[in-house]
Amino acid sequence: MSDTQLLICGTAFTQEERDRLGAAHPALFVGGPDEMGSLDEGLRAGIRAVAFKGHTPFGGEAMDLLPQLGVIANFGVGYDAIDVTAASARNIKVTNTPDVLSDDVADLAVALMLAQARTMILGHAQAASGRWATEGAIPLNRKVSGSTVGIVGLGRIGREIADRLAAFKMDIHYTSRSEKETPGWTYHGDVVSLAKAVDFLVIALVGGPETKGHVSREAIEALGPRGVVVNISRGSTIDEGALLDALEARTIAGAGLDVFENEPNLDPRFQKLDNVVLQPHQGSGTVETRTDMAVLQLDNVSAFLAGRDLLTPVN
Amino acid sequence: MSDTQLLICGTAFTQEERDRLGAAHPALFVGGPDEMGSLDEGLRAGIRAVAFKGHTPFGGEAMDLLPQLGVIANFGVGYDAIDVTAASARNIKVTNTPDVLSDDVADLAVALMLAQARTMILGHAQAASGRWATEGAIPLNRKVSGSTVGIVGLGRIGREIADRLAAFKMDIHYTSRSEKETPGWTYHGDVVSLAKAVDFLVIALVGGPETKGHVSREAIEALGPRGVVVNISRGSTIDEGALLDALEARTIAGAGLDVFENEPNLDPRFQKLDNVVLQPHQGSGTVETRTDMAVLQLDNVSAFLAGRDLLTPVN
Repeated sequence: MSDTQLLICGTAFTQEERDRLGAAHPALFVGGPDEMGSLDEGLRAGIRAVAFKGHTPFGGEAMDLLPQLGVIANFGVGYDAIDVTAASARNIKVTNTPDVLSDDVADLAVALMLAQARTMILGHAQAASGRWATEGAIPLNRKVSGSTVGIVGLGRIGREIADRLAAFKMDIHYTSRSEKETPGWTYHGDVVSLAKAVDFLVIALVGGPETKGHVSREAIEALGPRGVVVNISRGSTIDEGALLDALEARTIAGAGLDVFENEPNLDPRFQKLDNVVLQPHQGSGTVETRTDMAVLQLDNVSAFLAGRDLLTPVN
Repeated sequence: MSDTQLLICGTAFTQEERDRLGAAHPALFVGGPDEMGSLDEGLRAGIRAVAFKGHTPFGGEAMDLLPQLGVIANFGVGYDAIDVTAASARNIKVTNTPDVLSDDVADLAVALMLAQARTMILGHAQAASGRWATEGAIPLNRKVSGSTVGIVGLGRIGREIADRLAAFKMDIHYTSRSEKETPGWTYHGDVVSLAKAVDFLVIALVGGPETKGHVSREAIEALGPRGVVVNISRGSTIDEGALLDALEARTIAGAGLDVFENEPNLDPRFQKLDNVVLQPHQGSGTVETRTDMAVLQLDNVSAFLAGRDLLTPVN
């Protein structure tokens, strides 16, 4: 059995992130849970902690290859790639990196809403290309402040988004598993009712099987011709085919999207749309926040290996 | 002398805006103050009100061609194209359209800040082109929430910007003609001191000769390598040559600009920059707000012609 207790798992890790983990604890590396078997059995037998980053499914079979595994520390707040039920059944704790990324993700949600409504991609192209001088102004666009927004999922990130939008004098509606204490925001029991009531619909759900397709074709249709969808959660939380249909037919006004069903391989239908602002899943993609996430992941690993309480367990 | 008392002045008016004015009052039209002389003297003699839109200088000579002129109703909050001193000397009132556009301009200021810091132009191009799949993620960018911002000019629009940024947990500093009552924001007596203290510098000054070049080369240099300039006021309020030098040399981090010295003919140096987000002066460019501005302009004209108090006089 090897003395190395930490396994770094995922090609998504940057070299800097791997170095930080490796500097704190001797560590092995595999590209993903599906490559676990490539490690020598003797090495696997020593592993007590996995630092994980990525979206490759991490299921019970991969866990079974690490008989001493006690914790999977996920890089990111969304741990839908990890089969938590399988982990719990094996007495494996899972941790994530909540809170530290909420600000950044909420910032990007607001930015997507503004950029879509104010046609900033078109505006930038017009000004930066010189076409402003030769072709004139861009068409008038759309006021954001004072409009009505629906937040789908009023968790940590949804709350941060709503707090920002309140400063834009927006009328805030939301859905959530249960009604929450809010400064007068309007609760809806289901997403179709929410979509009917608002112009902007911002999805801030957790990912995973429970929320798959939660924003349904019916909800998208209920949004109506002034409706704009903003998604900074997971591509899986909305019926992407129905969204594309609505964007193409202009039965809704547009979308601002940071996440996609098959990312980074986007449905090619997205490329032909002029009513969307698209981002490459960079909600938490700032230097400051990725460092905070890496440190929190490491702190969870270190706590476990030292026998201390985990900082941010999810099971 | 003609019975027509209203002159609509400016090619910048849309047909809808001209129609709204003309439906309320019989009206003549000229393309700009410099075309005033093209109107027959008998027609000019009847004009008591000018509805003005645009950036062509409107000076005393043009006013002298309208001997009965009593009001110039400007479309827009910024009336720096109009020589107000010359108007006052001739007992001509000037009105503008404040407040109704503050929300939109503040929204765009926040959007420019977020889009620049979060490299959203690059992000959109990466996702929309398919390069995300072939070339991978974009570089990590920069956190906005919690950072330090300086507002240059805490008037109506500056205040709206600050109120929004407070919801992003930003540490707010400002300059203004005098210290204002604020919720704990930090006052600076000059713009160089302000620039030294902050990362984001948002210019919300009025235009005109008094603020020309107010954000000086020294202020831009004081901002430092993390500094981002956002300008939604007038191109004249900043030393644009110094700004371009700093953006090219990367002695500041970037800029988000809606206004330019020579717009719409931008300095071609802007086209080569990858650290800017540029917009074609569309701060108030929403359907909702342009309608509100048109209605307020008309209400000022109607008030004057009916002998009632002006709604929003500036002199």
